[in-house]
Amino acid sequence: MTANPILAEALRGGIVESFHRGALAVVDAGGSVHSAFGDIERPIFARSAVKVLQALPLVASGAADRWQLTDEELALACASHGGEPLHAQTAAAMLAKAGVDKDALECGTHWPYNDAAIKALAARGEVPSALHNNCSGKHAGFVCLGCLMAEGQDRREFLRGYVRPEHPVMREVTAALQAATGYDLARTAVGTDGCSIPTYAIPLRHLAHAFAKVATGTGLSAGHARAAKRLRAAVARAPFMVAGSGRMDTRLMERLGERVFCKVGAEGVYCAALPEQGLGVAIKIDDGNTARACEVVLAAVIERLLPLAGEDHLFVHALSDLKLSNWNGIEVGRLRAADVLRHGAPPPP
Amino acid sequence: MTANPILAEALRGGIVESFHRGALAVVDAGGSVHSAFGDIERPIFARSAVKVLQALPLVASGAADRWQLTDEELALACASHGGEPLHAQTAAAMLAKAGVDKDALECGTHWPYNDAAIKALAARGEVPSALHNNCSGKHAGFVCLGCLMAEGQDRREFLRGYVRPEHPVMREVTAALQAATGYDLARTAVGTDGCSIPTYAIPLRHLAHAFAKVATGTGLSAGHARAAKRLRAAVARAPFMVAGSGRMDTRLMERLGERVFCKVGAEGVYCAALPEQGLGVAIKIDDGNTARACEVVLAAVIERLLPLAGEDHLFVHALSDLKLSNWNGIEVGRLRAADVLRHGAPPPP
Repeated sequence: MTANPILAEALRGGIVESFHRGALAVVDAGGSVHSAFGDIERPIFARSAVKVLQALPLVASGAADRWQLTDEELALACASHGGEPLHAQTAAAMLAKAGVDKDALECGTHWPYNDAAIKALAARGEVPSALHNNCSGKHAGFVCLGCLMAEGQDRREFLRGYVRPEHPVMREVTAALQAATGYDLARTAVGTDGCSIPTYAIPLRHLAHAFAKVATGTGLSAGHARAAKRLRAAVARAPFMVAGSGRMDTRLMERLGERVFCKVGAEGVYCAALPEQGLGVAIKIDDGNTARACEVVLAAVIERLLPLAGEDHLFVHALSDLKLSNWNGIEVGRLRAADVLRHGAPPPP
Repeated sequence: MTANPILAEALRGGIVESFHRGALAVVDAGGSVHSAFGDIERPIFARSAVKVLQALPLVASGAADRWQLTDEELALACASHGGEPLHAQTAAAMLAKAGVDKDALECGTHWPYNDAAIKALAARGEVPSALHNNCSGKHAGFVCLGCLMAEGQDRREFLRGYVRPEHPVMREVTAALQAATGYDLARTAVGTDGCSIPTYAIPLRHLAHAFAKVATGTGLSAGHARAAKRLRAAVARAPFMVAGSGRMDTRLMERLGERVFCKVGAEGVYCAALPEQGLGVAIKIDDGNTARACEVVLAAVIERLLPLAGEDHLFVHALSDLKLSNWNGIEVGRLRAADVLRHGAPPPP
């Protein structure tokens, strides 16, 4: 196996201390590869990076209208959130609109990702619920879809097991993923995601193509195209909901609004849609590093592809090349996208 | 640059989801390479993996005897601990024996690594002190050494700036590191570690050689050989102190006692001494993954090198091939050392 190129580096004491290899694809809505690094044909689990694709049926089905979901709630349906109080409250509100509560969620429970939220719960002697799970908004979206599909039946009965591949809700979700990526999900590896829904192995080229479709609407059904546009707008108006305090997705979309839609996924995945350019981006860091590697890589890709003025450019550039400080606040090194991404010309496909 | 081999893999849905490349060296006390994977000549920052080498002067100088340090305290001097109550108390006790307190520590402050310790502090409305820093024991050791060296002078005055390379305390520490590794630290890259002391770039071959010396005493000065033996024994008797609840170093040494001395370091480093075999081991994961990659790799290396009976073998084997579960407790995959480490014959040096 040929090794993928180095896409991100951590420096200390003037040398590279650690580095991250990976692959990335930039594809247009017609499916043509705009630029690529590494192996973009190997199927990879897209994990939470495709939540916006999994939320398309929530809107296209009419469930979002039926339950009068707000921008905040639609953004949360696309989120891997920090479990901050507003995230948990918003997930609870979505469930209440559909006539159920947190007991309908099948995502499991974990302590919030957000440090302050952990300490606040602990200080009150409380423990988290499924509402604090980073996927609770996506699951609340599945439940809202299911409550529409269940009409005339017992909702709780219908919803049970909605995380399973064969459940009517998950079939809708998987069909949307397949339509957007154009990849045969019946013939690829299937894993179980952290929140218990299926996750499918899909090549970066197909994932980037799906996000070019999200960016433009081209290649999607009319219903999914409208849904993608509405979800992008919702996240741009409520970027706190898609991630949370200090998080990359929130910071980028607070700054750039609808010029970028981006979403991180576990194990070093990032997907993004660039509507002005009509391009989709998909990144996988080989070693699964989500916390640092794919963030600087995404920032470098955005800096290359998006014409950014003044403050916006400085903002994005700073996210591709960060100071690393130690516990005494002393600068000890830098974390940055590799030179090949920052300065080089994009290699031909 | 030739890519290092894949040393660890995370599987999901029957395929490799993410993988970690790296290098490892196994060296004997004479400096001969027993086995090697990847580039073992590239200088890497050993970070906290060499704390036992940095603690040699504490014992060899007589400071450990002078302040009547216990096994628990000596183990803490070699530790990257979880900031659990017993760790913080033990660091405080070391400082008190030398006649100073936590204000002498220059490691900085961070919230404990241990989850329960974070929540317990938060529940009491408290914030951490430098005693909770994972390096507080190593720094307490430096301070104990400094208080011996300062005799006849003002201790606080003498100690100030002990983290700097040119301070008499740090010179002793660096001299011990240089003597053990046989590498010219004056001519290599120097970084600042998380706790503000210098960290030197040293090839894995030299690091493994240093740990073979720690394993055997061969090649060390008589004073350092005695100190290494005492530190290994202290950690074997008090393995909780070197890491903490649920942590790899603690679990391995609780099980295997003096048969293994091992120590993790930030950015994917592991070093180990195997006294029965007279071997030293040094591992660097390219991407800096400390949490999972270097643990399964170390376990696989120990399984290969150490003749282990029954329960001990099962215990170590299980650490090289772990079940990954999601938030609902469903098995979603495995994390394991690569086949080349688990089944292959060691490649010749």
